[in-house]
Amino acid sequence: MKGKAHCSARHLNHVCIAVRNIEETLEFYDELFGLEVSGSIEHIEDQSVKAALVRIGGSQLEFIEPTDPSGPISKFIDDRGETVHHICFEVENLDQKLTRLEEIGYRMVDKQPRQGLSGQIGFIHPKSTRGVLIELVDQKTARR
Amino acid sequence: MKGKAHCSARHLNHVCIAVRNIEETLEFYDELFGLEVSGSIEHIEDQSVKAALVRIGGSQLEFIEPTDPSGPISKFIDDRGETVHHICFEVENLDQKLTRLEEIGYRMVDKQPRQGLSGQIGFIHPKSTRGVLIELVDQKTARR
Repeated sequence: MKGKAHCSARHLNHVCIAVRNIEETLEFYDELFGLEVSGSIEHIEDQSVKAALVRIGGSQLEFIEPTDPSGPISKFIDDRGETVHHICFEVENLDQKLTRLEEIGYRMVDKQPRQGLSGQIGFIHPKSTRGVLIELVDQKTARR
Repeated sequence: MKGKAHCSARHLNHVCIAVRNIEETLEFYDELFGLEVSGSIEHIEDQSVKAALVRIGGSQLEFIEPTDPSGPISKFIDDRGETVHHICFEVENLDQKLTRLEEIGYRMVDKQPRQGLSGQIGFIHPKSTRGVLIELVDQKTARR
């Protein structure tokens, strides 16, 4: 079935976990696995989250803590608990990929790349991905 | 905070997604990302699932489809939808790690290693991991 991929991905950039307290969660993962935050905890104002990346082998865990108690991440945790929020794949030429996916009928959260913690990113709506929220990051800009 | 890890992990073996139809899901990931199943779809009788691994960079996606409509994976999908079920980390000397984690108070699903799709594995209960179901696989036996 080679050759029909709309959006070839060769690397899993990160798995993101939504948490209520990012400092306590980072301490937990350090205690359990010896995984330490790479960089620092960042405030992402337009997403109303505190976020951090933790390197594990060639991939990463991302943790996000909502700073707005009525925002979507708070609602996600209220509904589902502190669990995996999305998975992020690295792709080439993200802007073209987002345009192409929309053209062929994918429901997109982002129609154009925007700056995220991991680089230039865009999300595909889980309605179009069989349930999983998928983030794409442009591999040229991807933080690892 | 170095040196206090109970269970050092240096590699993310896989992220597992629970799905209703593994064949259709594999076709979807191949169409979207060009990711193909490594090996074949396997029936894991004692877990009542069909399962497959898909390589992505140095890590993998695992897909599981319940074969028992009243089993735990069916219930998981009924409750949460087709979404991430667990994350698997590679560790050394899994048998010792499972024993140690139980000794220091972790609630374990598995107190001894057992054979899984990915190798010799054991699960930590999400009550002890701040919400995420975590699988450990012995790195000597880990399938990649």
